[in-house]
Amino acid sequence: MTPPPARPRVGHIRFLNCAPLYWGLARTGALVNMEITQDTPERLSDLLIEGRLDIGPLSLVEYLHHADDLVLLPDVAIGCDGPVMSCEIVTRRPLRDLDGRSVALGSTSRTSVRLAQLLLDRRYGVRPDYHGCRPDLERMFKDSDAAVVIGDVGLRASAGLLPEEGLQVHDLGQLWKEWTGLPFVFAVWAARRDFHERAPELVHEVHRSLTEARDLALGHLDDVAGRMSQWAPFEPAYLERYFRTLDYGFGPRQVDGMTGFAERIGAGTAHRWLTDPD
Amino acid sequence: MTPPPARPRVGHIRFLNCAPLYWGLARTGALVNMEITQDTPERLSDLLIEGRLDIGPLSLVEYLHHADDLVLLPDVAIGCDGPVMSCEIVTRRPLRDLDGRSVALGSTSRTSVRLAQLLLDRRYGVRPDYHGCRPDLERMFKDSDAAVVIGDVGLRASAGLLPEEGLQVHDLGQLWKEWTGLPFVFAVWAARRDFHERAPELVHEVHRSLTEARDLALGHLDDVAGRMSQWAPFEPAYLERYFRTLDYGFGPRQVDGMTGFAERIGAGTAHRWLTDPD
Repeated sequence: MTPPPARPRVGHIRFLNCAPLYWGLARTGALVNMEITQDTPERLSDLLIEGRLDIGPLSLVEYLHHADDLVLLPDVAIGCDGPVMSCEIVTRRPLRDLDGRSVALGSTSRTSVRLAQLLLDRRYGVRPDYHGCRPDLERMFKDSDAAVVIGDVGLRASAGLLPEEGLQVHDLGQLWKEWTGLPFVFAVWAARRDFHERAPELVHEVHRSLTEARDLALGHLDDVAGRMSQWAPFEPAYLERYFRTLDYGFGPRQVDGMTGFAERIGAGTAHRWLTDPD
Repeated sequence: MTPPPARPRVGHIRFLNCAPLYWGLARTGALVNMEITQDTPERLSDLLIEGRLDIGPLSLVEYLHHADDLVLLPDVAIGCDGPVMSCEIVTRRPLRDLDGRSVALGSTSRTSVRLAQLLLDRRYGVRPDYHGCRPDLERMFKDSDAAVVIGDVGLRASAGLLPEEGLQVHDLGQLWKEWTGLPFVFAVWAARRDFHERAPELVHEVHRSLTEARDLALGHLDDVAGRMSQWAPFEPAYLERYFRTLDYGFGPRQVDGMTGFAERIGAGTAHRWLTDPD
């Protein structure tokens, strides 16, 4: 008997923004066909690059850095077309007045931090003094005039839950859209090139599972939000609004957004796309 | 805002016999409410005992060893009432003739190995020379006259796929049933006592999710078997027969089976059961 293939080793980001995809992978039963590892985007990127995962989500800057070794999955990504609600620069003073000022960069983000630096440099013409910091606004504002935050901390900031009065919350998706007219892509899915060469049909199966999961979840965001609100400091209605704000698509417009960002940070714009099987 | 509870950290055994439960946890959507760690029974037992999981499955001997620190979940277990198909003593000579002979014990099993030793000692009155070994029948029979195997290797043996002619396959579930008239329980679910004290409602929720998952899966074993046969060296019909052979219940009869085993190996028979909430 020929030994059966091992299940593909697939990453899943343990963040709220990926909850609808996980809900969908569960509800369609596709999870049974994967060996899932749940972790932060940073850790999943590392596992994929090290070859300890076959397919997984990556923060956009990580993907761009390793594009030569990866096959990019179309149709599904985590992005926004305007506000994103969970990725912000929070400031004490206007963005144009941050030159030479201390800006704390939340240590859990890679792409948002790079986007914030790009916007401050190129759109606002300021060169702050950046330093990494644990993503805790109270602590960040002890010795900084601005902070870049994402995830739960970013979502709380978007809801107006801030450690002091007078802070301004700038949505990174909104700033990018005003500047370029483009959507933004925060995370993409990719397969290792060697895995794709060895088992292209498994990459296609995971890709189909992801898009089906996304499509099913988008029709049931009230249920996803109700479940997740048990485990997150947000009301179901607020979470549902967040999920509806995010853009889980990855078509021509989102690719333009990715390309626009890649060009502006000096990264390559050539991609090895997963294409339809012959 | 009160911080929300963390999701319960729940173990899942990456073996075929637990596939129906995982399928059910996915299909009901309950997986979204857990932080799942998938691993071998040994590793999951260790994680639960170390406090790195809150709730999880344990091999019966591991549970009995740590019963004081755990709350036992009723209604759901992995067992059999007669043959189990995947846990065997494979021998070159009759069981009664193994006195002083070399018997290889598969290193992936704890409860099956203990059950095999108990049966050989007390039912067959033989004292073989035991040694641990990687679960590979060909290798085991190089320097032994018998081997205890479980999982995929055990299932292949049950299907008659053996490395040499004339080997006899003795089903451990069947031997136990003939000897005692009782069902056997290979794995149970338990919560850490400290977690149960802190969050009893979460233990009850996971317990409900497990029994609902089991009930749903038992009605769709053809689908579970079809999916899993992609990743295992068995045809769907054979896998379905295996799932139907296993006993996923944990009621009075199965508890008698557990107690019968605990008494015979000199383990305690007092349990702290999860009881209905007041």
